[in-house]
Amino acid sequence: MSSPPAPIAPGGTIGILGGGQLARMLSIAAARLGLRAHVFCQTPDQTVAEVAGSATVADFEDEAALAAFAEAVDVVTFETENIPVASAEFLAARVPVRPSAHCLAVAQDRLTEKTFLREAGIVTADFAAVDSPADLEAALREIGLPAVLKTRRFGYDGKGQFLIREPGQTGDAWKAVNGAPSILEAFVPFECELSVIAARGLDGGIACFDAVRNEHENHILSKTIAPAGLPDLLYGQAQAMARRIAERLDYAGVLGVEMFLVPGAEPSLYVNEIAPRVHNSGHWTIDACAISQFEQHVRTICGWPLGAPVRHSDAVMTNLIGDQVAGWQDLGRQPGLAVHIYGKEEIRPGRKMGHVTQLFPLGSLDEDAPATTARTRSLKLPPEKIGSRP
Amino acid sequence: MSSPPAPIAPGGTIGILGGGQLARMLSIAAARLGLRAHVFCQTPDQTVAEVAGSATVADFEDEAALAAFAEAVDVVTFETENIPVASAEFLAARVPVRPSAHCLAVAQDRLTEKTFLREAGIVTADFAAVDSPADLEAALREIGLPAVLKTRRFGYDGKGQFLIREPGQTGDAWKAVNGAPSILEAFVPFECELSVIAARGLDGGIACFDAVRNEHENHILSKTIAPAGLPDLLYGQAQAMARRIAERLDYAGVLGVEMFLVPGAEPSLYVNEIAPRVHNSGHWTIDACAISQFEQHVRTICGWPLGAPVRHSDAVMTNLIGDQVAGWQDLGRQPGLAVHIYGKEEIRPGRKMGHVTQLFPLGSLDEDAPATTARTRSLKLPPEKIGSRP
Repeated sequence: MSSPPAPIAPGGTIGILGGGQLARMLSIAAARLGLRAHVFCQTPDQTVAEVAGSATVADFEDEAALAAFAEAVDVVTFETENIPVASAEFLAARVPVRPSAHCLAVAQDRLTEKTFLREAGIVTADFAAVDSPADLEAALREIGLPAVLKTRRFGYDGKGQFLIREPGQTGDAWKAVNGAPSILEAFVPFECELSVIAARGLDGGIACFDAVRNEHENHILSKTIAPAGLPDLLYGQAQAMARRIAERLDYAGVLGVEMFLVPGAEPSLYVNEIAPRVHNSGHWTIDACAISQFEQHVRTICGWPLGAPVRHSDAVMTNLIGDQVAGWQDLGRQPGLAVHIYGKEEIRPGRKMGHVTQLFPLGSLDEDAPATTARTRSLKLPPEKIGSRP
Repeated sequence: MSSPPAPIAPGGTIGILGGGQLARMLSIAAARLGLRAHVFCQTPDQTVAEVAGSATVADFEDEAALAAFAEAVDVVTFETENIPVASAEFLAARVPVRPSAHCLAVAQDRLTEKTFLREAGIVTADFAAVDSPADLEAALREIGLPAVLKTRRFGYDGKGQFLIREPGQTGDAWKAVNGAPSILEAFVPFECELSVIAARGLDGGIACFDAVRNEHENHILSKTIAPAGLPDLLYGQAQAMARRIAERLDYAGVLGVEMFLVPGAEPSLYVNEIAPRVHNSGHWTIDACAISQFEQHVRTICGWPLGAPVRHSDAVMTNLIGDQVAGWQDLGRQPGLAVHIYGKEEIRPGRKMGHVTQLFPLGSLDEDAPATTARTRSLKLPPEKIGSRP
C-alpha cells in the first residue's frame, strides 16, 4: 500500500458540494481547525454563506464553475448523495474528491447500494429491481407482502416510497414512484432503527461511534438516542458491519450506516441504507464528544489523524422540524440542552430548522430500557403543525 | 425595574468590534444559534472573515463606518477592551452596545478599575496613581516593595509592566512604562492565579462557571485548569465577588474576573483585573460545557435565556503560542483532546495561534492537588522557540 498523501494543513480550503445545514456544520468544524470552507450550491443560501469563507452559486453540472471551484480548493467533499456522479468525476480529475465518486454512485442508487451490500456479505432486506408494472408484479411474487416500493434515486425522508400491504395496491404504488426506476424491498419487521457513524482515514484506519437508536415521525428523523441501549455483542456487530462497508468501498470520510434491529431468539441487524456523508443521526456528537462527526469528516478528508470516537456524555438529539424551531426561547431555558439553529429564512412544514441535544451523565442512558425511555421523554416539544405549504 | 427588551431572534445580526480569535469564536457561537455576525476590525483579517457573514474594515474612530455598522446590526459587542469609549458611545446612541461603554471605560483604565473595585468592597492590591517620577517615589513610600508599575491603559500579556524589587529601579520602571500615566500596585504574594467567567443577562440574572486556575509563561496565559481545585468556600467566594462586580456595573454579557489566591491561615482572594468580554481562561467551556462562554455571551447580549454554567467534564486548556501550533498533527492524535486553530496566517513569537482542551471525567481534577498536577502535566508541548521577530 502506498503511503497516504500529505495532510491539508491549517489555512487549506475544503470544497463542499451542497449548501444545507450539513455544509453549515462542516464549515463550522473546519473553522475550528483553522481550515477554510468554500461551498458550492445551486441556489444562494444564507445558511451557509454566513459561515463559509467563500461560496459558488452554480448548477452542479456547470463545468466552468466546477473547474474554477476545483482550482480554489484543496479537497472536495459533499453534504448530499444527490450530486451527479459525472460532476464528481469531473472534479476528481482536478482535485481529490473524498469520499470518491464511486462511493457516491453506490449510495445514490438503492439498487446498486443493496447489490453492493449483499456482495459484501451484509444482511439486507430481500429486494428486486422494478422498472415496470410487470416487474412489480413479478417482484411481489418473489418477495411477498408487505413490501416497500422505493425509487432507486433521489429518495429521502420517506419521499418516493410506498408501503404495499395488499395485492390491490400495486397501481397506487407505481403511481407513488411516478413510474421511475425503482426497487421493491421486503418489509423488515424491525424493533427499532439504529445507525452507526463510521469514519475511515486516508491511511485506512477506521473509527466508529457507538450505535445509536433513531425514532422517526412522518418519515423524518425525530430523535436520536446515544447510545442505543443494546447488548455489547450488538454494538460490536453494528460497528463490524460499518467497518466492512467502509473497507469494501475504500472509503474516505464519515459514513452513516442505517440499520434495523430485528427481534428474535438471536436479534439480528439488517443494513437499510448507507449515507456517504455526515448524517443527521450523528449530530449529537457535536455536544457529547470531544471530536464531532463534522470534525471527524474534516479530519479524514484532509488526511489528519482520526479522532477517538469517544463520548463524554450520553445524549438525546431531537430535530426541530418546521415551526418547532419557534420554541427557541423555551428550549434555551432548559439546563444542559444545547440549541442549534440552522439560520434558514423560511419555516416550511417538514423542513429541518435546527436541533437540540440534551446531555446526560455517561452511562445513564444505557442502564435499562424503562429508565432510558423515561429520561428521553423529558424533552417535550409541541408537535409540528403540518398544514398546507404557505 | 422595567422589563428587559425583546430578545434578538435567530436571523438577527451581532456586531463585534475587533477581529481576533475571540471575535472568531463568538461568530462561530452565533452561527450555531442561527444568528449572524458582522465584524468591525481595523485591518483585513482572514481569521474572522472566514466565519463571519460580514466584515467592515475601518478605523475604530471612523464615524461614517461606525454609523453604517450600527445600521447593519442589532446589537454591538467587543472582543477587546481597547476600543475608544467615544466610539462605543457613538454606537450606543444608535444601537444597543453590550456590555455598555461605561463598563468598557472602567475596565480599560487600571486606575479607574481598581478604584471601582475598592468602592464596590472588593479586595485588591494597594495601589496609587503615578503620573511622574515624583509620584512614583511618593507611591513607593506609601506602598512599599516589591511593587509593580503598570501603564493605566493598553496593557495586556505583561506588556507595559515593571516589577520593582529595589529602590534603585525606579528609573528603569519609569522608562518601561514610557512615561505614560501609570499605577503602582503592591506586589501580591499569591499562591496561584484564578479566574471566574461570569455572565449577566438583560433581566439581571447571573450565572458563573466554577473558578479555574491559570498558569502563565512569559506573562502569557499558558494553561487553564477547570476547576481550580479549591475548598468549596473559596469557589463560593470567587463567584460572589464576580457577581458583585457584574451587578455594580449593571453588566450585560460575559465578564472575566482575574483573581489571586493569597495563602494564609484563612486563604483570601484578591481581584487583579476584570475583562469586559469573553476571556482566554474560559476557552475550556467550548468543549467541557453544553453552553460555552462564547454562546453565553451571545445569549446574554441578545436577551436570550442565560445558559446553565454547568460542565460535563473537567478540562485542561493549553494555549498554542507561536510555533507550538506547528504540532497540530501530533496533537490531533491524542484521544480526548480537542484542537482549535485560529487560522492566523503568520506565526509570530508570543502570538496566540490556537489552543487545545483535554477533557477528563467530571470530578477527576478536583480530588486532590498532587493527582491534578500529575494529570495536567500529561500534555507536553515543546517550549515556544522565542527568537527575534521574523
